[in-house]
Amino acid sequence: MSTSVSSVQDTIVALATSPGANGAIAVIRLSGTQAIGITNAVFRGKDLTKQSSHTIHFGTIRDGEQIIDEVLVSLFIGPNSYTKEDVVEISTHNSKYIIEHVITLLMRHGARAAKAGEFTLRAFLNGGMDLSQAEAVADLIASGSAASHQIAMQQMRGGFSNQLKKLREDLVHFASLIELELDFSEEDVEFANREQLKALIHHIYSVIGKLIQSFEQGNVLKNGVPAVIAGKPNVGKSTLLNALLNEERAIVSEIAGTTRDTIEDEINIHGVTFRFIDTAGIRETEDVIEAKGVARTLKKMKQARLIIYLFDPTQDRMTDVQQQIADVQDLRIPFVTIINKSDLIDEQQRAEYAPLNPIYISAKQQLGIEELKEELLRQVNLLDMNTDDVMVTNIRHVEALQHTQGALEKVLYGIDNPVTSDFLAMDIRQALYHLGEITGAVTTDDLLDNIFSKFCIGK
Amino acid sequence: MSTSVSSVQDTIVALATSPGANGAIAVIRLSGTQAIGITNAVFRGKDLTKQSSHTIHFGTIRDGEQIIDEVLVSLFIGPNSYTKEDVVEISTHNSKYIIEHVITLLMRHGARAAKAGEFTLRAFLNGGMDLSQAEAVADLIASGSAASHQIAMQQMRGGFSNQLKKLREDLVHFASLIELELDFSEEDVEFANREQLKALIHHIYSVIGKLIQSFEQGNVLKNGVPAVIAGKPNVGKSTLLNALLNEERAIVSEIAGTTRDTIEDEINIHGVTFRFIDTAGIRETEDVIEAKGVARTLKKMKQARLIIYLFDPTQDRMTDVQQQIADVQDLRIPFVTIINKSDLIDEQQRAEYAPLNPIYISAKQQLGIEELKEELLRQVNLLDMNTDDVMVTNIRHVEALQHTQGALEKVLYGIDNPVTSDFLAMDIRQALYHLGEITGAVTTDDLLDNIFSKFCIGK
Repeated sequence: MSTSVSSVQDTIVALATSPGANGAIAVIRLSGTQAIGITNAVFRGKDLTKQSSHTIHFGTIRDGEQIIDEVLVSLFIGPNSYTKEDVVEISTHNSKYIIEHVITLLMRHGARAAKAGEFTLRAFLNGGMDLSQAEAVADLIASGSAASHQIAMQQMRGGFSNQLKKLREDLVHFASLIELELDFSEEDVEFANREQLKALIHHIYSVIGKLIQSFEQGNVLKNGVPAVIAGKPNVGKSTLLNALLNEERAIVSEIAGTTRDTIEDEINIHGVTFRFIDTAGIRETEDVIEAKGVARTLKKMKQARLIIYLFDPTQDRMTDVQQQIADVQDLRIPFVTIINKSDLIDEQQRAEYAPLNPIYISAKQQLGIEELKEELLRQVNLLDMNTDDVMVTNIRHVEALQHTQGALEKVLYGIDNPVTSDFLAMDIRQALYHLGEITGAVTTDDLLDNIFSKFCIGK
Repeated sequence: MSTSVSSVQDTIVALATSPGANGAIAVIRLSGTQAIGITNAVFRGKDLTKQSSHTIHFGTIRDGEQIIDEVLVSLFIGPNSYTKEDVVEISTHNSKYIIEHVITLLMRHGARAAKAGEFTLRAFLNGGMDLSQAEAVADLIASGSAASHQIAMQQMRGGFSNQLKKLREDLVHFASLIELELDFSEEDVEFANREQLKALIHHIYSVIGKLIQSFEQGNVLKNGVPAVIAGKPNVGKSTLLNALLNEERAIVSEIAGTTRDTIEDEINIHGVTFRFIDTAGIRETEDVIEAKGVARTLKKMKQARLIIYLFDPTQDRMTDVQQQIADVQDLRIPFVTIINKSDLIDEQQRAEYAPLNPIYISAKQQLGIEELKEELLRQVNLLDMNTDDVMVTNIRHVEALQHTQGALEKVLYGIDNPVTSDFLAMDIRQALYHLGEITGAVTTDDLLDNIFSKFCIGK
């Protein structure tokens, strides 16, 4: 994809709704200086060029005299549109034949097929939204849980980028003053108050630090809380995963060590996504393939935010259980202790296990699963993840923030040490550059290509 | 589904666009007296109840204070809408989470989930379109070729139903006059001119006759031209089908008689759909399963509008070929003669086959396939199917037309024979009833259920 700014001159067209047979209507979208003119050339009903913005017009789309469809045409006259250009949305009957014919017809009249994300790219290039907002549009469409939706919505509506823009403006002000000093370098004047600059840098540094810290939590909420179901072989891990997923996605077998490949799957509990990681059991083994599975399990456990540790009271002795708990505690990851096969134990055993404060389930009999789900939610709440907080969920943003921090550290060093104004100015410019990368105040074609090529066509 | 007229009072809501991840926007549609009020209750931006019809408004959908999405709301104030009721279309970001949340929210505020086809049912019940037009909407969405699209579009825009409506009105006029005669039955008067009535009945009878005749062609164009690829076993029928379909849908095997089940598939050649019917070969066989396959082939061949007869010059002798052509000609179905494996024959053989005027192909080497496609199109044009003609494609319409004809025949008999006016009036009313079934002037809940339950939700 080439997303050079020069391409903004032409008029683009694409299907904006999902393709597929199961809908009544489809929406074809055009954007560009010729959007209304091109539509008008194939539309019969009214002269679209003489209508107001935000109005809807009934008529037919014709290829010569052949009626392709009866449609509703919505007009958005720039800059009062998504892309800030003239935008037309044609609502057609949802027939593949009609959609293809109308788009082909519009292209014959001068429109060009839009590239992935090109409508949103234009919105960004035309100042309709900053880069982090544009990225949030894709996140919003992809969001599958209440938590990920809320984070994306917050980012799309400004979120931290408004905060960063304000800080960046303050910093630009200081950069200008220091650059002014360079013009008067022989006179040894200081236009920029070093104490005020230092205070600002500290403030920005602290704000950025909090945003970087929010990434881990934001990412967890966006992509799901990674949870490992661990335990000895054949303790019922796959059965539990299946009970939680309510379908047979993992291979369940009576033979110990059957589950060799990690299978990841998601479950949504009251708006929070848990990404369950099924693993091979941990045990001493001579089997090479199995040994690989065990190594992977330990690696996975370290990545998890939550460990669900499963015991089989018909197999595991209490001393084993205590040792295993100690092992898991060493990982310093929150964990939930579960006694599986609870239908097979007696009151005496229950009393024995009571100090572990476990949850009793039977994965096979689907007993205690709801209680377990509630405990999982409680554990997430203990992680203190509040979706109302501004959160960074994009690795690109975190990297830019980290680079900004690096530059700010140099600026702080420069203020407190005999560094000349030109070096100070350079470091501030560096910080501004990285801050600007987030909102798109600073971009490159490669960066834009990378971001927008991940969008779907029509967005 | 219950589609009783009383349900028209409530406000319905549904996703109108295709579900699926691959789109930028989705459209949620409401219809009913409360459509605007319900939307207004969850919308923040403007007071939607104070806006004009056919206008678009930007704002947010909120569940309490939580922003669910930034949306565009389109207003259609009844009767200037698809359903003739107040209609609202909410254009959201295409996220499953957002769509579900918004629809649930609208339902919490009083909307009801729309049943299949309920928007179009309302359009019909409110006089926005007649029944055959409503049926054409579903056909239009399903249309996959230029031909089927054109037939559906013609029907949706009035087509033959306008013609029938006019004829029905004329007939209603006569029915009234004859019923008036009944009031004066003791005076033996004739308000209805019998000769004029006879002329009208003949005219209607002839129009209906043409429409019934159009069904076969209309149906072929709507559903595809049924074509059989026939020939001796192992002559390359499956390979040819695959070459035409460009993919491996049929089981191709070197073993004679492998293809036992008929496999149907479609190919679109320049706007015309061909429905290819792959068959087992015709040959003398002791194999029971195979014998069933042969019987099915002959049955299929009789259903076809076009037979593609395939010869293998490396197997078939010229005398066989001539005999087979004679057999096929007996079926009186247009046929195309094809010599397969043309890469394996010499000039002498070509000279021998020339009188058959065959098309030379190699299904395996993909040679001559384009020429074959052109010949198939030429054959369809010879079938003289003109998509500009008004055509009946719906079996329900044909049946109603046939019933109308039956009633009209009784009327004609009644005019020419000593039948009392009350019987004549009854037969005319019977004809009017069946004519009315087509346009929906006469309906039952069962009929409406049957028609609209086949629609998708949201239409």
